[in-house]
Amino acid sequence: MTDWTHHYATRASRMAASEIRELLKLLDQPDIISFAGGIPDPDLFPKAEIARAYAEVLNDPERSAAALQYSVSEGYAPLRAWLAGYMGDLGVPCAPENILITNGSQQGLDFIGKLFISPGDTVLVSWPTYLGALQAFNSYEPRFDVLPGPENNRSAGSYGPPGGGGAKFGYVMPEFQNPTGSSLNLAERETLLDAAEAMDIPLVEDSAYETLRYDGERVPSLLALAAARSGGIDACKVLYMGTFSKSIVPALRVGWIAAPRAVIDKLVLMKQASDLHVSTLNQIVMYEVASRILGEHTAQIREVYRARRDATLAALAAFMPPGVSWTPPEGGMFIWLTLPEVIDGAALLERCIKEARVAFVPGAAFFADRSGRNTIRLSFSLNPEAKAAEGVRRIAAMIRTVLAGQ
Amino acid sequence: MTDWTHHYATRASRMAASEIRELLKLLDQPDIISFAGGIPDPDLFPKAEIARAYAEVLNDPERSAAALQYSVSEGYAPLRAWLAGYMGDLGVPCAPENILITNGSQQGLDFIGKLFISPGDTVLVSWPTYLGALQAFNSYEPRFDVLPGPENNRSAGSYGPPGGGGAKFGYVMPEFQNPTGSSLNLAERETLLDAAEAMDIPLVEDSAYETLRYDGERVPSLLALAAARSGGIDACKVLYMGTFSKSIVPALRVGWIAAPRAVIDKLVLMKQASDLHVSTLNQIVMYEVASRILGEHTAQIREVYRARRDATLAALAAFMPPGVSWTPPEGGMFIWLTLPEVIDGAALLERCIKEARVAFVPGAAFFADRSGRNTIRLSFSLNPEAKAAEGVRRIAAMIRTVLAGQ
Repeated sequence: MTDWTHHYATRASRMAASEIRELLKLLDQPDIISFAGGIPDPDLFPKAEIARAYAEVLNDPERSAAALQYSVSEGYAPLRAWLAGYMGDLGVPCAPENILITNGSQQGLDFIGKLFISPGDTVLVSWPTYLGALQAFNSYEPRFDVLPGPENNRSAGSYGPPGGGGAKFGYVMPEFQNPTGSSLNLAERETLLDAAEAMDIPLVEDSAYETLRYDGERVPSLLALAAARSGGIDACKVLYMGTFSKSIVPALRVGWIAAPRAVIDKLVLMKQASDLHVSTLNQIVMYEVASRILGEHTAQIREVYRARRDATLAALAAFMPPGVSWTPPEGGMFIWLTLPEVIDGAALLERCIKEARVAFVPGAAFFADRSGRNTIRLSFSLNPEAKAAEGVRRIAAMIRTVLAGQ
Repeated sequence: MTDWTHHYATRASRMAASEIRELLKLLDQPDIISFAGGIPDPDLFPKAEIARAYAEVLNDPERSAAALQYSVSEGYAPLRAWLAGYMGDLGVPCAPENILITNGSQQGLDFIGKLFISPGDTVLVSWPTYLGALQAFNSYEPRFDVLPGPENNRSAGSYGPPGGGGAKFGYVMPEFQNPTGSSLNLAERETLLDAAEAMDIPLVEDSAYETLRYDGERVPSLLALAAARSGGIDACKVLYMGTFSKSIVPALRVGWIAAPRAVIDKLVLMKQASDLHVSTLNQIVMYEVASRILGEHTAQIREVYRARRDATLAALAAFMPPGVSWTPPEGGMFIWLTLPEVIDGAALLERCIKEARVAFVPGAAFFADRSGRNTIRLSFSLNPEAKAAEGVRRIAAMIRTVLAGQ
């Protein structure tokens, strides 16, 4: 067959098949200890609450008929209203009209790419950043540059004159970042907002792990800070993405964007053109479940994940050789390891799987330029404490073996 | 606020808010007889089967854990395998690897736009065509030209030399088209395939209403005919889109694309970057429900819709004044009326709603160039026979009033 889909072939080549998704397949092998998939533990899903909510809706003929029908593109009105209140509790006074319901926050990333990026535009991301964001944005053929941040000394001016063909927007996960687990403190957030204002670009705030804080005090979101500076959400230039994938379950595919109303209005048209609306039934069920149990449920899962993080950190301290470093995360699912420069994360993974039956994600996947070869990401969400300790012991032993063979 | 989302503002202006979706809001007013929304009758939804399937999955702890977790982007394996068999029954021998599960067929349209269209490219559509296709494609800024078809005498050569900057693809709904209700016969399908071959472009076949045939014999799909010509689906250039939205329910947002494997491989990457996957739980439930009841259920709903179509057609014959014409559809949900040229469909709608409490969709919405001002679309899916007759009587009376006032 001649390649009559060449047009996308060019785009697809920039969008190399996701190492993470390929690695998820390893989870099926029971003797592998996996730190790879950044996914929630299904043992912690509120299954009974979810089953009850589906039954309540589906066993009521009138509710069932509406729940199984087409619905409006902006999302289920009670869910939007509830999320407006939720965002208010996070310090962002907003209205239901500031909320769009999306298929998880991944769809938010795709829509933001479609909204802002023309081929060749520059998008600012941290180095490393969330792989799914790189994939979503890559569909629109941008180039990437590094966001000003604590790990570099880029100034706003270094990107060119404001509005003069510089960056289109900056993407940031300010809390418990995937993949590094690191967070921006208040001063760093204010500095980032200053830089975005100087460049006259919007910031895209990905808050996927917001509910999973194990230590420390909550820091106001970029959206809250920007809204306070501007006199309200509708006058600010931050788009916030949230999701129930980490706090309730991923499979219903329910997330949201909170943004100025003028942006939401455009995104609603985009949602309509893209896939009409998020599953009506799933939105109703997510509203019922989240409004009943979100606070109590996330408190429970935080206890479990905190213990797993602590066990993983303790094992790192106990087993890792000198030259391996990491920063304890205050929340989320990830610990980021920087290895001695002689070690390649991908090669280490291959040996770890084959010889030690333990898996993780090589860090290069998270760099727009595929640098960071000597970094790896450990997800601690799936492994109970003893298993986490054994897994870290195996990785540490393999690192020592590799170092000894140099 | 300065318009910092100007980039999409340009795109959005081509994507005028959907008249159909706005009109859906009218359905809430109980005294309106609506022929507007092209949506299935919720009284016909297999609610008990769906409730049972959710309960079965969610009350089994092991199935529930998997159903609520992230899953692969290509779709739930048993559903893909079942759909491969279903496509085989439609005359398209194919493998599960030829199937991608999408959020309804609307997402298929969006993905096909993203795959093929660069700004300024030409897309061939019928005149009129499905509004949702125009909206999905418009996000990628094409221009539209008319597809060769029975209603025009365009030749393949009239679009320019093959492969020489002519059209990118042709989009067609060969059965019970939305909005006209018309279908292509076998000879017309073969002629269209000839033209596409001469132009060296793929065809996108939207088969949303395929299960809703009330009269006549099934005609092989374009995909079946193309695969037969080429020696198999993987060697042909047709992408087929199917959906459960009309045959089971819309709200689970489960549809599919059947296409050559090389195309599906690219679309899987696109699905991953766009929103990871269709709701795992909804895919499992749709598999359970469709594999149990699709044939029997669609036979039942065909009886109901056929009676409504017949009642609507009988009322048209009884009440419409001379100068109004329509073609009886063999299936689907739509009857297309061509009015005397002095009548504007949008103006007629406004008077019909205000003065006669009856609604429909003005036909201009379905033309890429907004022509067709004297056409209207009636959807007969929601109105029982007596209500359909009364609704048609009201529209006919208003048309007579308008004509008398000329």
